[in-house]
Amino acid sequence: MARLKRSKKTGLPPGSLVFVGEAKVEKPKITVIDYDENHVEERVVASAKECFAFKQTPTITWINVDGVNDSSLVQQLGTHYEIHPLTLEDILNTEQRPKKEDMGHYIYVVLKMIFFDNEHALITEQVSLLLGSNFVISLQEQERHGDVFNFIRERIRSGKGKVRKSGADYLFYSLLDAIVDYYFVILEDVGERIEKLEAKLIEEPSQEILGELYKLKRTMLSLRRSIWPLREVVGSLDREESPLLHQATAVYLQDVYSHTIQIIDNIEVLRETLSSMLEIYLSSVSNRLNLVMKFLTLVATIFMPLTFIAGLYGMNFKHMPELEWVYGYPFALGIMATVAIFMLGFFKYKKWL
Amino acid sequence: MARLKRSKKTGLPPGSLVFVGEAKVEKPKITVIDYDENHVEERVVASAKECFAFKQTPTITWINVDGVNDSSLVQQLGTHYEIHPLTLEDILNTEQRPKKEDMGHYIYVVLKMIFFDNEHALITEQVSLLLGSNFVISLQEQERHGDVFNFIRERIRSGKGKVRKSGADYLFYSLLDAIVDYYFVILEDVGERIEKLEAKLIEEPSQEILGELYKLKRTMLSLRRSIWPLREVVGSLDREESPLLHQATAVYLQDVYSHTIQIIDNIEVLRETLSSMLEIYLSSVSNRLNLVMKFLTLVATIFMPLTFIAGLYGMNFKHMPELEWVYGYPFALGIMATVAIFMLGFFKYKKWL
Amino acid sequence: MARLKRSKKTGLPPGSLVFVGEAKVEKPKITVIDYDENHVEERVVASAKECFAFKQTPTITWINVDGVNDSSLVQQLGTHYEIHPLTLEDILNTEQRPKKEDMGHYIYVVLKMIFFDNEHALITEQVSLLLGSNFVISLQEQERHGDVFNFIRERIRSGKGKVRKSGADYLFYSLLDAIVDYYFVILEDVGERIEKLEAKLIEEPSQEILGELYKLKRTMLSLRRSIWPLREVVGSLDREESPLLHQATAVYLQDVYSHTIQIIDNIEVLRETLSSMLEIYLSSVSNRLNLVMKFLTLVATIFMPLTFIAGLYGMNFKHMPELEWVYGYPFALGIMATVAIFMLGFFKYKKWL
Amino acid sequence: MARLKRSKKTGLPPGSLVFVGEAKVEKPKITVIDYDENHVEERVVASAKECFAFKQTPTITWINVDGVNDSSLVQQLGTHYEIHPLTLEDILNTEQRPKKEDMGHYIYVVLKMIFFDNEHALITEQVSLLLGSNFVISLQEQERHGDVFNFIRERIRSGKGKVRKSGADYLFYSLLDAIVDYYFVILEDVGERIEKLEAKLIEEPSQEILGELYKLKRTMLSLRRSIWPLREVVGSLDREESPLLHQATAVYLQDVYSHTIQIIDNIEVLRETLSSMLEIYLSSVSNRLNLVMKFLTLVATIFMPLTFIAGLYGMNFKHMPELEWVYGYPFALGIMATVAIFMLGFFKYKKWL
Amino acid sequence: MARLKRSKKTGLPPGSLVFVGEAKVEKPKITVIDYDENHVEERVVASAKECFAFKQTPTITWINVDGVNDSSLVQQLGTHYEIHPLTLEDILNTEQRPKKEDMGHYIYVVLKMIFFDNEHALITEQVSLLLGSNFVISLQEQERHGDVFNFIRERIRSGKGKVRKSGADYLFYSLLDAIVDYYFVILEDVGERIEKLEAKLIEEPSQEILGELYKLKRTMLSLRRSIWPLREVVGSLDREESPLLHQATAVYLQDVYSHTIQIIDNIEVLRETLSSMLEIYLSSVSNRLNLVMKFLTLVATIFMPLTFIAGLYGMNFKHMPELEWVYGYPFALGIMATVAIFMLGFFKYKKWL
Repeated sequence: MARLKRSKKTGLPPGSLVFVGEAKVEKPKITVIDYDENHVEERVVASAKECFAFKQTPTITWINVDGVNDSSLVQQLGTHYEIHPLTLEDILNTEQRPKKEDMGHYIYVVLKMIFFDNEHALITEQVSLLLGSNFVISLQEQERHGDVFNFIRERIRSGKGKVRKSGADYLFYSLLDAIVDYYFVILEDVGERIEKLEAKLIEEPSQEILGELYKLKRTMLSLRRSIWPLREVVGSLDREESPLLHQATAVYLQDVYSHTIQIIDNIEVLRETLSSMLEIYLSSVSNRLNLVMKFLTLVATIFMPLTFIAGLYGMNFKHMPELEWVYGYPFALGIMATVAIFMLGFFKYKKWL
Repeated sequence: MARLKRSKKTGLPPGSLVFVGEAKVEKPKITVIDYDENHVEERVVASAKECFAFKQTPTITWINVDGVNDSSLVQQLGTHYEIHPLTLEDILNTEQRPKKEDMGHYIYVVLKMIFFDNEHALITEQVSLLLGSNFVISLQEQERHGDVFNFIRERIRSGKGKVRKSGADYLFYSLLDAIVDYYFVILEDVGERIEKLEAKLIEEPSQEILGELYKLKRTMLSLRRSIWPLREVVGSLDREESPLLHQATAVYLQDVYSHTIQIIDNIEVLRETLSSMLEIYLSSVSNRLNLVMKFLTLVATIFMPLTFIAGLYGMNFKHMPELEWVYGYPFALGIMATVAIFMLGFFKYKKWL
Repeated sequence: MARLKRSKKTGLPPGSLVFVGEAKVEKPKITVIDYDENHVEERVVASAKECFAFKQTPTITWINVDGVNDSSLVQQLGTHYEIHPLTLEDILNTEQRPKKEDMGHYIYVVLKMIFFDNEHALITEQVSLLLGSNFVISLQEQERHGDVFNFIRERIRSGKGKVRKSGADYLFYSLLDAIVDYYFVILEDVGERIEKLEAKLIEEPSQEILGELYKLKRTMLSLRRSIWPLREVVGSLDREESPLLHQATAVYLQDVYSHTIQIIDNIEVLRETLSSMLEIYLSSVSNRLNLVMKFLTLVATIFMPLTFIAGLYGMNFKHMPELEWVYGYPFALGIMATVAIFMLGFFKYKKWL
Repeated sequence: MARLKRSKKTGLPPGSLVFVGEAKVEKPKITVIDYDENHVEERVVASAKECFAFKQTPTITWINVDGVNDSSLVQQLGTHYEIHPLTLEDILNTEQRPKKEDMGHYIYVVLKMIFFDNEHALITEQVSLLLGSNFVISLQEQERHGDVFNFIRERIRSGKGKVRKSGADYLFYSLLDAIVDYYFVILEDVGERIEKLEAKLIEEPSQEILGELYKLKRTMLSLRRSIWPLREVVGSLDREESPLLHQATAVYLQDVYSHTIQIIDNIEVLRETLSSMLEIYLSSVSNRLNLVMKFLTLVATIFMPLTFIAGLYGMNFKHMPELEWVYGYPFALGIMATVAIFMLGFFKYKKWL
Repeated sequence: MARLKRSKKTGLPPGSLVFVGEAKVEKPKITVIDYDENHVEERVVASAKECFAFKQTPTITWINVDGVNDSSLVQQLGTHYEIHPLTLEDILNTEQRPKKEDMGHYIYVVLKMIFFDNEHALITEQVSLLLGSNFVISLQEQERHGDVFNFIRERIRSGKGKVRKSGADYLFYSLLDAIVDYYFVILEDVGERIEKLEAKLIEEPSQEILGELYKLKRTMLSLRRSIWPLREVVGSLDREESPLLHQATAVYLQDVYSHTIQIIDNIEVLRETLSSMLEIYLSSVSNRLNLVMKFLTLVATIFMPLTFIAGLYGMNFKHMPELEWVYGYPFALGIMATVAIFMLGFFKYKKWL
């Protein structure tokens, strides 16, 4: 269950900067990469102020903040880069629905980065991206689990690909693309878990499969919730007519958009598959019950009459002529055999056997 | 079940002012807060007339009425502030669907305030908000349970935040925002109850869980009904081009709108979760039945034949050679053991064990 | 099941006036109310011709026809008031879907009047409303059950409300409003029946509840079918730019529209509630079956082994050492007790107890 | 299952005229009715050529072809009336989805004629209608089962109705209307079968009802598939601005449109009814199982302990003091009665009785 | 489960040409057909370069590549025909959602070719089509299974049909049409499998039917996923105003569009049919369980009391007067018969028999 932690904020004036999310003790980590086609400079800085010098240079600056629980840090950045108080509030609230806002001198996009941590557990972290004319600020919810941007850093350092030769909007696109592309990895993993369940589903419906099915349904529900609004976000970026986005980047944003559509497609297919599996599970359990009950009925139907007959000749009445007969015993056995055969025949006839 | 009390009104001419709602004996309580950047005046008044003086002053007046069962009071307010009779009718009818009406010299919004009372029970109260050029009138269904506006009163008194420095439209927005923000608290609470149920769902499906599930479904249904139309209401406020709403407030209304979207999102997710839980519940119950029946079948299948054999040798025929045999008893026991082992083997083979 | 009686008409040329509906022997009853601000005249007339004189006067004339099975009467009215043959055909066909047609010199609206008769049974009757410049003609399917217009008649007679002071369009609106407002009464009643069922649902699922649930589902289905298209009808009246509808009436039509939306909302909520109830019913029945079967399994599992042991020592073998033992009987009882305790323990362990 | 016979065509060049449908040996039957206000001429012709003379006359010509398996006939008509090869291809392919095409000098509509044959079986036949300036060509899939146009023929012959006085577009409308109106008859019949099932549903759920339900669901599915696209077809005819459709016919097409909407409405209601019935069926079966199992449990719970006690005193131990007691037998009976009464009480307490 | 293999690419710069799909060792096979109205030349070439000469000629060139795992080949083609890097990336990624892109000097369409291989297994292969002014390039995922284009090749060679007389856009349309038309064959086949299942469904619900149903559901899900987006693709081609598509081809694209709509229609019908079948399956299994349990209950209810009575008179009490009676045995038999008859009567009364 995606918890709603908004209640903390209820009652505060709009624009109050309060961190809404799980409390984390770690200090935020700020990394700055400043580059143009010819140089790269990468630094871990101790406080927001150390970044401000880069704002004046024509080079492109990528400020990455890991951990947004320090509201004074966000405030400082906000003041220097002229970020609107409501945007700052959204950055600190880690329960945002993905959205895009064009504020003129910057574009703000908030979305969910979903990835595996080192123990292969699913991590959902909120990422806020701010695109300015010569800077990109990315703010991540926490540092602990890393992120999906390492290969972009690598490419900036090495100068491979187009990133060093392009503007801040290309970096912005690259970060977006990295997050969206990682969704494929997540869905692939979920797809494989579903395939494994499928194999067991029909032959061996069990309580564990049910639990696993339910967990997968919940995962899909939360993935869908995190990703669905992105369609609108990326779609509107694509249509955006902001001077911050160059013409050349449009085709790349279109590409991200078509990836988003495909991911949503895949999510829907997986969700439908899970629904089908649950229906099949239920049918399969019913079917098995049927088989078990047919067998019980067969056994009971054969042995109850036989036991009754045996009980009959086990009665202690003084005057029971059959008991005296020489062939009484075989006679009783004969009746029993007849009854048993008749019952088996009846079952065959009813196609219960 | 949200009761429909409209029937009371059927047959009355349109515009008849009749209170539609649960009869309450309490007298309405009227509170006036009049303020501008430099002064605040707060008063509980005995009758509507005492407020009228404030209409002429340029200061902002917030008239809050707790309890709308007194139609003459509403009539008085209506006459003085030139409210349309159909609006007055809507105010008195507490079964309204959330809606917005722009009447030129005032904007009317009706919506549901949902909150917990002191005993943590869910209270749904209708709130009518009227925004004029220098006044806001809020009319609440009843006084008993309080409301979610206390921190706004506090802020006006203390002068914190922007409210004292802004116009009536900002106060109007603040009230709207307070109501919408409280929905997060409600959903958080429901979310936690759902999480608790989830834990019990698969291991221990019981009749109580079923009852609880049903209650939650009903709660979600009624929350959804109260909140869903708000999307349209807030959305159209956002697009509104009324002189009553200043440009500076637009960005705040947009913020409320995005909160509303997020709340509706959360409601849908919770609803789908409940649906999944019900499916899982049903599957789980079926599964358990299966296990029980397999066990019954196992027991019956083993002991029915054994009992029959025992019954067989309990018959009182004169001529039963086996009874005379020295090893008759062990022989019978041997047959029984063979049958029992065979049956167990059969169960293993069928994977029912 | 809403019967489709259109087949009667199949094969007739378009515009043929044939009554499609249940045959009724009653003669149609025609009532005329002619009024302006200063006078009222009310008459039951024997034939259509007696109304025609009113057409020339500037006063407003309301012709109400109860029973539309007499096609010659409808033809006469049609000729005199210049009604298009296809409209007349629609009037006679009582299986119409609610719709609106603007024919220039008159507006035609057909909808369903749903109300309780004296025995509290639900009656669905088709009502056709024709609005001209100075007349309103209302045609009802039958007379027997009365209608929902009595309080409008009363108001015209007494001169209360706005109706006497307003034009034909206000009367037209009043009739529409009366019909729509009565839907609230119907839904309230259905809502109460659902609430009563809810109480019984979880504790005591029975075949009767199932039957009742089904009946309610069917009722909702047919209510929905009758009311849903009204949204469009009233919505388009609202947007209509006909000289027949004065500006002043627009706000009242808007009010009817918002009532219609609310009714459709309520219908959807009730329908969803019924769906939930059916799911819960099914789950509850499954659950109960489970409890019963656990108990059966418990009893069988304890007594089958015991009966077998008793049977064992009831065998008549000559040589059964245990039978001779002095403590044979207590020994057997001991074994039985052990088995029973073990079985109870097993059940406890499996949490089936 | 509506079979898809398109595969026959796969691999042929577009515009190849190949009959796609069930092979039928019958020779196509061509009927020509040529008429104006003053004369009628009706002829069954042996070959397509005999119709061509009528093309030059100003009179209206209705060519009806029963059986479209003869592609050379269709080719001849196509050449003479200048029909586009793709239209001819569509005519021959009897698996078309209803659609409309405006080719300038003619309008092509293809739809499904659904009717009962003499044995009351449902027949679905494709009908292609071509409207030209002075001709209508109707092509039906086969002759065997007749059609729904007889009353139109009758009306042309007798000169009743407007058809003889109107243009080709009115004839075209009449054919369309005849087909759509017959859908009401079909739905009425299905509605009656559903009503009959309903009566049996709750009291007597059986395998036959299930089979019948399934058949009805399939029927509705295929009716829906045949009729649903018609909405768009008739709707676009209605909006069409072709010189082939006169102004006077527009109101009639509108009427067909509103019938189509009503039919689709009815189909949806019937489909929902069937879904509800299936849910109720399932619940009802579960409920009955419950009753049966409660009874079994009651019987087993009472007699298993009794049989055990009887078995106990049937043991042959030498030393069983109870057997010697004078009141041993009544004592045993007393214990049995106590157990039985206790069990009945337990059932009453559990509300299983 | 359609596997998502995108993960391979994650982390590479956009526009990196990496084959995403199942690794195949086969070398791509390149076939060139160059034709105009008067000549045809067909060649299998060893490397991409051999095709380039054709680019300068005014004749139409169809380059077909089987197997896209060789990214250098795709790169060469791309460079020579000025294909955008992102298009090349899409060609190599065989997990694309069907889409269309108009790049000015070429139109790119990617879709799924679905067909049976020689062993009648379903093969889904991605096909990329590039339409230039005088060339069409088709790139298929692999060679092994052939394709659905053979009859087009045949028609080009023989000069039948319009293809030799028309431009590259007609060839492009022909390829599209061939792929879409083959979907009918696939759906026909699935339809037949469903029909076969239907026959068995009600009379003989078994685990195998369930497995088959599930497989069909999955097939439909993946067909739908492959085909659904095509609606938009073909629809937008139809509306496209590119100089690459001549006016004369528009009507053919419209035809493909209406086929696509019909295919999607058929898919939805088959999906709904499968859903109905699953519901019926579940109901049928429940029903059968009911029958079996009724029979078990009947047998148990009759024989349990009888066995008890027999056990009663099998007790060994010294003082049991009935045992001494001359007519004790017939008396006991009489009681047993009475009980049995009573029980049968009870069952008849309950309608369980």
